[in-house]
Amino acid sequence: MRVGKNDTVFARLDFSRKERTGFGETVFGAGKTPDQLTSIFKTFAEKGHSVLATRVNSEQYDAVQSTGLKVKYDPMGRLLILPGKVRRLAGQIAVLTGGTADIPVAEECAGTIEFFGGKVARFFDVGVAGLHRLLGVIDDVRKADVVVAVAGMEGALPSVVSGLVSSPVVAVPTSVGYGAGAGGVAAALAMLNSCAEGVSVVNIDNGFGAAVVACRMLRRMKGVKV
Amino acid sequence: MRVGKNDTVFARLDFSRKERTGFGETVFGAGKTPDQLTSIFKTFAEKGHSVLATRVNSEQYDAVQSTGLKVKYDPMGRLLILPGKVRRLAGQIAVLTGGTADIPVAEECAGTIEFFGGKVARFFDVGVAGLHRLLGVIDDVRKADVVVAVAGMEGALPSVVSGLVSSPVVAVPTSVGYGAGAGGVAAALAMLNSCAEGVSVVNIDNGFGAAVVACRMLRRMKGVKV
Amino acid sequence: MRVGKNDTVFARLDFSRKERTGFGETVFGAGKTPDQLTSIFKTFAEKGHSVLATRVNSEQYDAVQSTGLKVKYDPMGRLLILPGKVRRLAGQIAVLTGGTADIPVAEECAGTIEFFGGKVARFFDVGVAGLHRLLGVIDDVRKADVVVAVAGMEGALPSVVSGLVSSPVVAVPTSVGYGAGAGGVAAALAMLNSCAEGVSVVNIDNGFGAAVVACRMLRRMKGVKV
Amino acid sequence: MRVGKNDTVFARLDFSRKERTGFGETVFGAGKTPDQLTSIFKTFAEKGHSVLATRVNSEQYDAVQSTGLKVKYDPMGRLLILPGKVRRLAGQIAVLTGGTADIPVAEECAGTIEFFGGKVARFFDVGVAGLHRLLGVIDDVRKADVVVAVAGMEGALPSVVSGLVSSPVVAVPTSVGYGAGAGGVAAALAMLNSCAEGVSVVNIDNGFGAAVVACRMLRRMKGVKV
Amino acid sequence: MRVGKNDTVFARLDFSRKERTGFGETVFGAGKTPDQLTSIFKTFAEKGHSVLATRVNSEQYDAVQSTGLKVKYDPMGRLLILPGKVRRLAGQIAVLTGGTADIPVAEECAGTIEFFGGKVARFFDVGVAGLHRLLGVIDDVRKADVVVAVAGMEGALPSVVSGLVSSPVVAVPTSVGYGAGAGGVAAALAMLNSCAEGVSVVNIDNGFGAAVVACRMLRRMKGVKV
Amino acid sequence: MRVGKNDTVFARLDFSRKERTGFGETVFGAGKTPDQLTSIFKTFAEKGHSVLATRVNSEQYDAVQSTGLKVKYDPMGRLLILPGKVRRLAGQIAVLTGGTADIPVAEECAGTIEFFGGKVARFFDVGVAGLHRLLGVIDDVRKADVVVAVAGMEGALPSVVSGLVSSPVVAVPTSVGYGAGAGGVAAALAMLNSCAEGVSVVNIDNGFGAAVVACRMLRRMKGVKV
Amino acid sequence: MRVGKNDTVFARLDFSRKERTGFGETVFGAGKTPDQLTSIFKTFAEKGHSVLATRVNSEQYDAVQSTGLKVKYDPMGRLLILPGKVRRLAGQIAVLTGGTADIPVAEECAGTIEFFGGKVARFFDVGVAGLHRLLGVIDDVRKADVVVAVAGMEGALPSVVSGLVSSPVVAVPTSVGYGAGAGGVAAALAMLNSCAEGVSVVNIDNGFGAAVVACRMLRRMKGVKV
Amino acid sequence: MRVGKNDTVFARLDFSRKERTGFGETVFGAGKTPDQLTSIFKTFAEKGHSVLATRVNSEQYDAVQSTGLKVKYDPMGRLLILPGKVRRLAGQIAVLTGGTADIPVAEECAGTIEFFGGKVARFFDVGVAGLHRLLGVIDDVRKADVVVAVAGMEGALPSVVSGLVSSPVVAVPTSVGYGAGAGGVAAALAMLNSCAEGVSVVNIDNGFGAAVVACRMLRRMKGVKV
Repeated sequence: MRVGKNDTVFARLDFSRKERTGFGETVFGAGKTPDQLTSIFKTFAEKGHSVLATRVNSEQYDAVQSTGLKVKYDPMGRLLILPGKVRRLAGQIAVLTGGTADIPVAEECAGTIEFFGGKVARFFDVGVAGLHRLLGVIDDVRKADVVVAVAGMEGALPSVVSGLVSSPVVAVPTSVGYGAGAGGVAAALAMLNSCAEGVSVVNIDNGFGAAVVACRMLRRMKGVKV
Repeated sequence: MRVGKNDTVFARLDFSRKERTGFGETVFGAGKTPDQLTSIFKTFAEKGHSVLATRVNSEQYDAVQSTGLKVKYDPMGRLLILPGKVRRLAGQIAVLTGGTADIPVAEECAGTIEFFGGKVARFFDVGVAGLHRLLGVIDDVRKADVVVAVAGMEGALPSVVSGLVSSPVVAVPTSVGYGAGAGGVAAALAMLNSCAEGVSVVNIDNGFGAAVVACRMLRRMKGVKV
Repeated sequence: MRVGKNDTVFARLDFSRKERTGFGETVFGAGKTPDQLTSIFKTFAEKGHSVLATRVNSEQYDAVQSTGLKVKYDPMGRLLILPGKVRRLAGQIAVLTGGTADIPVAEECAGTIEFFGGKVARFFDVGVAGLHRLLGVIDDVRKADVVVAVAGMEGALPSVVSGLVSSPVVAVPTSVGYGAGAGGVAAALAMLNSCAEGVSVVNIDNGFGAAVVACRMLRRMKGVKV
Repeated sequence: MRVGKNDTVFARLDFSRKERTGFGETVFGAGKTPDQLTSIFKTFAEKGHSVLATRVNSEQYDAVQSTGLKVKYDPMGRLLILPGKVRRLAGQIAVLTGGTADIPVAEECAGTIEFFGGKVARFFDVGVAGLHRLLGVIDDVRKADVVVAVAGMEGALPSVVSGLVSSPVVAVPTSVGYGAGAGGVAAALAMLNSCAEGVSVVNIDNGFGAAVVACRMLRRMKGVKV
Repeated sequence: MRVGKNDTVFARLDFSRKERTGFGETVFGAGKTPDQLTSIFKTFAEKGHSVLATRVNSEQYDAVQSTGLKVKYDPMGRLLILPGKVRRLAGQIAVLTGGTADIPVAEECAGTIEFFGGKVARFFDVGVAGLHRLLGVIDDVRKADVVVAVAGMEGALPSVVSGLVSSPVVAVPTSVGYGAGAGGVAAALAMLNSCAEGVSVVNIDNGFGAAVVACRMLRRMKGVKV
Repeated sequence: MRVGKNDTVFARLDFSRKERTGFGETVFGAGKTPDQLTSIFKTFAEKGHSVLATRVNSEQYDAVQSTGLKVKYDPMGRLLILPGKVRRLAGQIAVLTGGTADIPVAEECAGTIEFFGGKVARFFDVGVAGLHRLLGVIDDVRKADVVVAVAGMEGALPSVVSGLVSSPVVAVPTSVGYGAGAGGVAAALAMLNSCAEGVSVVNIDNGFGAAVVACRMLRRMKGVKV
Repeated sequence: MRVGKNDTVFARLDFSRKERTGFGETVFGAGKTPDQLTSIFKTFAEKGHSVLATRVNSEQYDAVQSTGLKVKYDPMGRLLILPGKVRRLAGQIAVLTGGTADIPVAEECAGTIEFFGGKVARFFDVGVAGLHRLLGVIDDVRKADVVVAVAGMEGALPSVVSGLVSSPVVAVPTSVGYGAGAGGVAAALAMLNSCAEGVSVVNIDNGFGAAVVACRMLRRMKGVKV
Repeated sequence: MRVGKNDTVFARLDFSRKERTGFGETVFGAGKTPDQLTSIFKTFAEKGHSVLATRVNSEQYDAVQSTGLKVKYDPMGRLLILPGKVRRLAGQIAVLTGGTADIPVAEECAGTIEFFGGKVARFFDVGVAGLHRLLGVIDDVRKADVVVAVAGMEGALPSVVSGLVSSPVVAVPTSVGYGAGAGGVAAALAMLNSCAEGVSVVNIDNGFGAAVVACRMLRRMKGVKV
């Protein structure tokens, strides 16, 4: 759209997204001022749409909530949700983490899946350094149609999991770790180089992206329940 | 397995894979001598199993073929196949390339999918520099349950495609290109940073890996036809 | 110039620049103290010259303004301008962004072009993940003599645009994004590896640099109107 | 285009390019077999089109020439040309190199410009380590409408040149050099970080790309003479 | 040692090493001509010393053997040995590999340990993608005093093993793999970032280095039997 | 372990670790809130276990201490310890640093070793730029069964030390330094490339990791005294 | 030196340095607490030694000064000096900068040279983008026995200068710049790849290091005047 | 110099260099054909100039020699010399290597110094892993006015040497080594990060560059004897 000097937009909202993609509207919260985020939520609310914002901090949440909108905030996953009618996705998605420090990314993923109508089974802190933890839950993990494996440091979890299940595994490297390969680089490279088949990778800390991939899979696999 | 000094293995063959994963046996051909590869194919043939070898050059093919085994060789995708009974996967997978130089990787992917019983629709040389090429086929691409987008250089194809379809997109960066970011690094980084939702990434030139991811989806999606 | 120990300069001002290059004076604001920037602006004002400072924050602006100088400040593009007589450049420059987060860099570019006497058409938030947005404005983009394409994340916009226009495209990677290839590295590599012809690249977030390249073209293109 | 299994294309030729972009057809020769390149040239010849292939080695040239086609080969710039009617571009492009080892890239650029109808002034081996060489020719360089500066090693030539001219400078890093930052990385980074205004950069060794950028500029600047 | 122009050494041999370090003499064979290597072996033989050369190819071996020296060559580990009296180290070292392609590095390690008088238990092709392979041998691995874990690709083997044993684990990344993080970089980074305790890392493909570390550990642990 | 939405764990405590590995429990303090750390310490105290937390800042320490637990805090090594009965390890571990800025990492290592029951000899600020400092203490260093060499900048200390002792050397690169290779990258690469035999490396600043490696050796070396 | 647990040093002071190296004592101030720095200065003052601390901020300066010591502080070069008797070095050192942002590094260098008794000629803001600035002072630069060239961004100044003088050139890359190659990486690589002879390089922002290199030359060059 | 299309130069020879810089002419041999190198040597011979070519292989040498020119070839240092009258430089330069594999780079340096009239003392294979080797020659090294320290792998030699001498140390990283940081990157980073004062660095394997730096120092230090 042509933009004049005096009406610079800070976000081109996408009101037809649900029709086009089948999923609800979403907004990337990081970098937006509390006022901008509030304005976006009010606009969706006025149209009767639900909306999910990711990477929302408590200051942004306070601003939106203070307007009286009925939003829900998950501080662990940093998700702010204006709820609406959800079409249920059939099937189930397992979300695993290697350690406890990976949980915020996993909750961004899990909360997004739930916003899109998917069912999530969480298996946290099952990293490869203590294999008994993973082996203790693997029978339940195998029931999932898609597995999201979230891990930082050496990023070995997706490789080990993928050898134990027959579902596709979406690997999410996290920025957990330090030193050489810090910021998730070691984990991301390890996941791209997985010796196990059936693993594909999203960007570092991109729990939201993994959720969309997993839900697109589920929808094609199982269809949508209204 | 415990390995004695005098019987060093060059490959631990996996005869129960089909039962465990539902897919046929596969072997990574690169780095194996013609004799080693021949030995592997004969072992599978004796057991009546089918097998697929990837990254096979013509010298390796000649060695295996000269033993009288009924193998098929695809020089473009560098695949060597000992055929067997295949269970058909329901659904369809679209395989796209940005340019013609990406075709070997795409054929490694497509041939592997076909070995696993999947149906492939090929859309080659539809890169983003000439958008009319992609837009001319997009209606057919939309029919696929999974889209594999193979591209080198700036690796923009998955981002553009993912915005135009509702299926999951598996992105395969290729080592096509030169200069800064050569060897597929620029393409891989671009795909991990895709601004479009629904994209996950496998390793550079890993057409085989994309095929496994896509087929795992398909199998979960639709069930398996025998 | 020989500099004595006790008169260390903090900026060697260039008063003959306009004569030498045809463009007005410019200053890089980042890293200068409010006092230093004020002193520079007063010096130019005393000589009756216009001047543009880039990367100026509000604290610096307040300091300069408080001296009574008739400056104009654009907080989005972080530009501070002491206006003067401008010679109009013929032709037109289109400035595009992939997303809304790229707008500050785009406004740095657009405001600089306008300071140099060029005419700008803005097309913001037309990234490749939603191709309909770009295709909806492409006929207007084609009218420009130079196209500046500003994008972060996977940096695909210049490649797609360059395939749709016949003007030169100046690509500006931005530091928008996170994870692997963050800080603009993924975008910069992608733009250097563009499969589309006609693209050249400036440094990450360097909206000012793109403006100078574009204006040098325009001046040579059409001559300068006084 | 939909591609069947048995008619895998090795190049989707673009016969309407001249109409669309105003420039003649071009082909990237590297990686194509002599037979493939011959086939492409024959196809263009049958349609009466001119065509330029870049990165052509002598073996490929011998194959094409042996068919009797009236091609011209420049071994320094590795260009193979099937000549045709050329529309002259007004104006002039200066092509500079830092050293003699940069000449192949510069000739790829210069020969491409000439194929597109542009006029080239060559200034080779005028690197910054011996400034008298550059200063001795700078008056002639200033006459050009666009300057292409080709340099490896520390890549300082574009910065120095851009401070001495008022035209846009297209910088081409080359892979000349060794050790830290080898393969053109040091030169490319230096050019992106140029302290001089008016510089934009193409990929390492991409003489062809610089030619297209420069010719797009010229055409917009001056129009095309028929 | 002061070296005159005309007697440039190609190797300063170290005849007192065994006394100083307790281990036999070793030579890095890569980059040495067959004549140089032969000369070195003859010098040690004349003094009645044993010696081990690593990274020896078959051409070098042929040259040394043709002199009549009683050497032993291991083509898999690329080790050439002039045997001598060996003092036995007490205890045992387990050497594991992730895949079959890692075996040459593992044999360089195992053969070096045996040259130093250590006892090796080999466990090859027990990578994490098929966890049953590792779990099937883990009880035997636990008996070792030091574990050397050799792996390429994502390099996850040391992390998983270290969580299952109480001995120190020496991790050897190998250059097996391709694409992003190729050449062993992904594996090396993963091993340095291991979430499991007790892992330390040597250079990529440095089987010899791991052997020295492991034997130094053993000697201190158990003392040396003469 | 299966984790429900409403009981997200922030740490899966490992109460059987001492039995499994022979060492006391440890916790990574960085990133945990004071409340979380306090809760963890109280849980261990209730069970009568000792515990060591690494990377603990003074705010975290204050919180834990204010509960009345008898903890000990080492601000230099950032270690917080709830003491318990310790089984003495035989032997001795030397901990060296190149400079004074490396001491916090060295104290993390030394304090951890002492928590595990090992005996530490400290040799700080003995870097290679002043060789007399190292040579003055080398006879005492030689008495150690394991040497931990901690160094930043060019990371040369482990190479020099390893040539002077016959024990295994665990190298710890630190993030001390600046400029090219900052953050410990130069030191880590140098240590992996050590020309001296007997060196293995842990992650940058990972004093804790080096302690575990060294103690695993010691325990195997001499047996454990209760 | 052997360090007991309870007397951990924070700096091993070197009181014999002047005798050993001929230069005064120096201390790296960054990372030291005001108390630590004060303690160091008092120790030197009590012994009647002069001392130079680099990277000293104003808070550290205030602490040292408040003790009544007669120190001198240069806030631009961040140098804190306890003056003493200086032996004059013969000859002269030229210190150049590309821009004004490089001046702090240049003053760290110049002030250190002066502390060591050397004579400095300063030539600031003579970068290659405006060559007339450098050419205007080059005759004076040529008089120096050593040239220190300090530059960020593309780091071209040492290459250009070295071609114009016959003295050795010590290149100091600075962290001035942004985007690709930021933090001084682009400048450092460019300087290592200089096409001009006679250039050697120190670490990024290491003005102190360049001063030591230059003064070591001077002392050998001309002898030392007492 | 203006270069016409048909007289593309392959090298702009510099016949006044000796007058300008005081040193003889030099040519970079790598990448030049035997014919080109022969032509260059004949041109210098006809003018009665001496000339040094670096990186010359035996095929190039054979071509030049076969013309009857009285050249001298050093295969270790890959130097080809057409001798002439040499002005002696006073003073002495020590050239050290860490290992034997660094000798080719060291001989390139030493031979270039001798061509320029300097006196060289060689100390090879004195790397830090066996410190007794270095300490055994250090008294002779201290006599040199400049020290060139050549080392690959971890590149620690310059740091250790610089702490033992008072002359400036020119560090030359070599590409000796493998694995992480291979190609000289680890050594170059280590040398830039040297904790020892007085070290400056040239590019990887750039023995020639170190020679020019050292000779420029010597000439300024001591002047030139005719």
